[in-house]
Amino acid sequence: MLRSCAKRLRALGSLRGPLPCEPRPALRSFSSKKVVYKDFSIPNPSWSKDIRLLFDEFMKKCEDGSWKRFPSCKYGSIQRTQDFKTFHLDRELTKEDLRTQTRLFTSSFEEGLGFEHVIFCNDVEKRTVCLFQGGPYLEGMPGFLHGGAIATIIDTTLGVSAAIAGGTVMTANLNINFKRPIPLCSVVVINTQLDKVEGRKFFVSGNVQSADEKTLYSEATSLFIKLDPDKSLT
Amino acid sequence: MLRSCAKRLRALGSLRGPLPCEPRPALRSFSSKKVVYKDFSIPNPSWSKDIRLLFDEFMKKCEDGSWKRFPSCKYGSIQRTQDFKTFHLDRELTKEDLRTQTRLFTSSFEEGLGFEHVIFCNDVEKRTVCLFQGGPYLEGMPGFLHGGAIATIIDTTLGVSAAIAGGTVMTANLNINFKRPIPLCSVVVINTQLDKVEGRKFFVSGNVQSADEKTLYSEATSLFIKLDPDKSLT
Repeated sequence: MLRSCAKRLRALGSLRGPLPCEPRPALRSFSSKKVVYKDFSIPNPSWSKDIRLLFDEFMKKCEDGSWKRFPSCKYGSIQRTQDFKTFHLDRELTKEDLRTQTRLFTSSFEEGLGFEHVIFCNDVEKRTVCLFQGGPYLEGMPGFLHGGAIATIIDTTLGVSAAIAGGTVMTANLNINFKRPIPLCSVVVINTQLDKVEGRKFFVSGNVQSADEKTLYSEATSLFIKLDPDKSLT
Repeated sequence: MLRSCAKRLRALGSLRGPLPCEPRPALRSFSSKKVVYKDFSIPNPSWSKDIRLLFDEFMKKCEDGSWKRFPSCKYGSIQRTQDFKTFHLDRELTKEDLRTQTRLFTSSFEEGLGFEHVIFCNDVEKRTVCLFQGGPYLEGMPGFLHGGAIATIIDTTLGVSAAIAGGTVMTANLNINFKRPIPLCSVVVINTQLDKVEGRKFFVSGNVQSADEKTLYSEATSLFIKLDPDKSLT
């Protein structure tokens, strides 16, 4: 289990910065000499009317502070390179071409082709909501999302719920019931909530529904483990 | 459950051709006026020495017919367009830009950046083996594969085991225990086997190990349902 497999945690904690799902300033993009970030969780021309309407609805909920939007960033190449130099100093993986090419999986596609999504959270209710439009590069059966793409966005959203409560966590178990296939490029809503905390274990569950909440596509439970900075990750 | 959610199955069966995991002629690439296929499950310059060695080892096992390699294809745009025209005739999703852009998720990245993999199967032993090298666009924590990327390649490999026995199947449940994070760009081996068949239910399990079999990264169980051509898919 993950308890027995955590290493370099202090290093990780310092070099990874916030989790991909953790709050960052809600700026569209910003840059400095060292870091280039772009926030991918705001509307772009590929977003359909459905996801835009839901986005506006949740942004209104953010006005009184009860909900917050999680910016999603694809690290700039300079920061990524630095991460790799630091983290993989003693590894074979530190090839120059690799260091400069890493991308966060959910932000690795061009606009509109992959995981178009935005995550909102409510700290008091311990709830997280992801608005997701899966693009044409995420296909499984013709016309439908690949099960792995669904698992990816579910894992990401569940992970935010766990990370809010536990900080640096890692998925230890993910159990998904796929009830109906999700049409490609449709908009779905992933609702998750933190169910229980036992020491370093965070139990989170959730489901995937259509935007109108009439269709239940998937249900999931998960276990996340808060990483122990005194143990090895590998 | 999936039993209650299958539609257009005859149409699907006829237009999807084989599953992404089903055998296709082991040609590197071929083209006609109507269809352009490329087989992505053969070595390319991005493949490391580790995956090449394993590939050669399994290709030798194929010589006596006990094992078979599954070609992996990213449909050509013309075929994909035709699929969409047929399948989504009455849907809003039939926008021209979408029809021409769909890609099988596991083949949607440029060479070396995503899911470099090849699947072999043994019909008699009901086993399937996937050799997988996860590229830099599949990152979760810096330096490691995203849990969703791992779930994707596990789902794909388990699905082949089920499809060999059941034909057109769809994931109904996927349960993964993540035991250790997988370093980005390392080579892992996914072993799966068909455990049980109950009517239209196919139970498949498997695990993810390092190329030298010394490290167990993940374990998974799954349930696949053979689709009923008389029922709706959505």
